Amino acid sequence: MLISVSDPDDPRIEPYRAVRERDLVGREHRFVAEGEVVLRVLSRQSRFKIESLLLAESRAETLGDVLDVLSPEIPIYTATRVVMDAIVGFPIHRGILAIARRASLPPVEELLSQMPEKALVVGLIGLANHDNVGGIFRNAAAFGVGAVLLDHETCDPLYRKAIRVSVGGALMVPYTRVPSADAMVQALQAASFDVMALSPSGKEILAQVQPSQRTALLLGAEGPGLPSALLARTRTVSIPMSGGFDSLNVATTSGIALHHLASAAAFPAL
Amino acid sequence: MLISVSDPDDPRIEPYRAVRERDLVGREHRFVAEGEVVLRVLSRQSRFKIESLLLAESRAETLGDVLDVLSPEIPIYTATRVVMDAIVGFPIHRGILAIARRASLPPVEELLSQMPEKALVVGLIGLANHDNVGGIFRNAAAFGVGAVLLDHETCDPLYRKAIRVSVGGALMVPYTRVPSADAMVQALQAASFDVMALSPSGKEILAQVQPSQRTALLLGAEGPGLPSALLARTRTVSIPMSGGFDSLNVATTSGIALHHLASAAAFPAL
Repeated sequence: MLISVSDPDDPRIEPYRAVRERDLVGREHRFVAEGEVVLRVLSRQSRFKIESLLLAESRAETLGDVLDVLSPEIPIYTATRVVMDAIVGFPIHRGILAIARRASLPPVEELLSQMPEKALVVGLIGLANHDNVGGIFRNAAAFGVGAVLLDHETCDPLYRKAIRVSVGGALMVPYTRVPSADAMVQALQAASFDVMALSPSGKEILAQVQPSQRTALLLGAEGPGLPSALLARTRTVSIPMSGGFDSLNVATTSGIALHHLASAAAFPAL
Repeated sequence: MLISVSDPDDPRIEPYRAVRERDLVGREHRFVAEGEVVLRVLSRQSRFKIESLLLAESRAETLGDVLDVLSPEIPIYTATRVVMDAIVGFPIHRGILAIARRASLPPVEELLSQMPEKALVVGLIGLANHDNVGGIFRNAAAFGVGAVLLDHETCDPLYRKAIRVSVGGALMVPYTRVPSADAMVQALQAASFDVMALSPSGKEILAQVQPSQRTALLLGAEGPGLPSALLARTRTVSIPMSGGFDSLNVATTSGIALHHLASAAAFPAL
């Protein structure tokens, strides 16, 4: 349902107003997604329900194949660039925005019980940077990760920038929150996951690690890393690096580790 | 030599004026570096000569150990935050800037002739994004890469943001320019490097690749990738990914490939 909007104050496009300011305060049960690649994932490969789109007029035509598969009752607002920028509050270069509903987060036990016999899961502890969380979801999607678990200090994967950096991976890979790192390890071990924690002080060398049928990879923030109480309860794994150089970026680290684990296990997804 | 500056128009701090605008036009034989981690690398682990520093007054004390090892003739300008921001043109949160001289770029043959018998080299083709080039230099430093070769479309590793993203890796790993991708492959093969090109259509699977004593890894931009004429002349290597998902970020890809190659070769640097 294409609806042309010419007044930036049109009440129907209220959810698109002042996007950046709302990014900060949050949107309760909704999130905003931007760009063509992300929209394609959102409409075809995600579990999220699109509520509406706002497109620059020039984009409505190039997205024909995406728009055709949307439910006909979803409003597709179109506007000139000038009107769109006035609504949003800054220039949306790609001319594509969508509002979608969040899904409720399942209890961790339920999510883990849905994993196949052979599964790779990622757990994030204290990752407060949206670029890193987005990058990790991108890698998780690339290497067939079954689920991502987040502690309460890890930032929202459905934050606009995290989705963009994930190239839609944040919309594809199931995830949920757990109350603490302890609860995360407990739930993983109860579900027969072999829990590995990446740490510069890790005892095993990543390249020599042979993953189990069900493997979980825990990642902490650059700098503080993972708490030592957690390292004491898991297999600790390190990535050897050239003398004296600062540690790798955590998203890159996730890619390195997931590549090794997925390759070594010959996960069927690959 | 500590010199307090109170006038933003002081001619001595001319090189620090309007940093962002100069980032765009370039600084000829100089570059600007920012932040404590980068300054530490610049002063201790790089081949570049520092010409001067500009520090927020609050930072001069915390950097005592770095300042002590600098040649006494290097001017260290200090200013209040307000004056520093006025000079630079935007808030420098970390309060640390340095101007250093570029080193001349050696001919590729000379650089390669200095590589040890067992060496890992990276070649970048058409990488125009500073985050990606910075991230690749970070990974190159972490995995003991001996040199990075850049074609003329690849952006400047000494651009301020690239250095920052590299966490100083761009200052540590030797690099040079080559006129074309063809010339790059030719020089590498002439120096007995086994040249591998990463490509989604690559014939070998990365996890199974056994590197040679001298291995070169070529990376192209996400999207266009490496030219097919180049792929025809090299070993092509792919990273299998989960069904239908967009390719990995190129910096992450470099980390995955360098980790595998460095681990498989047990490079002495690790």
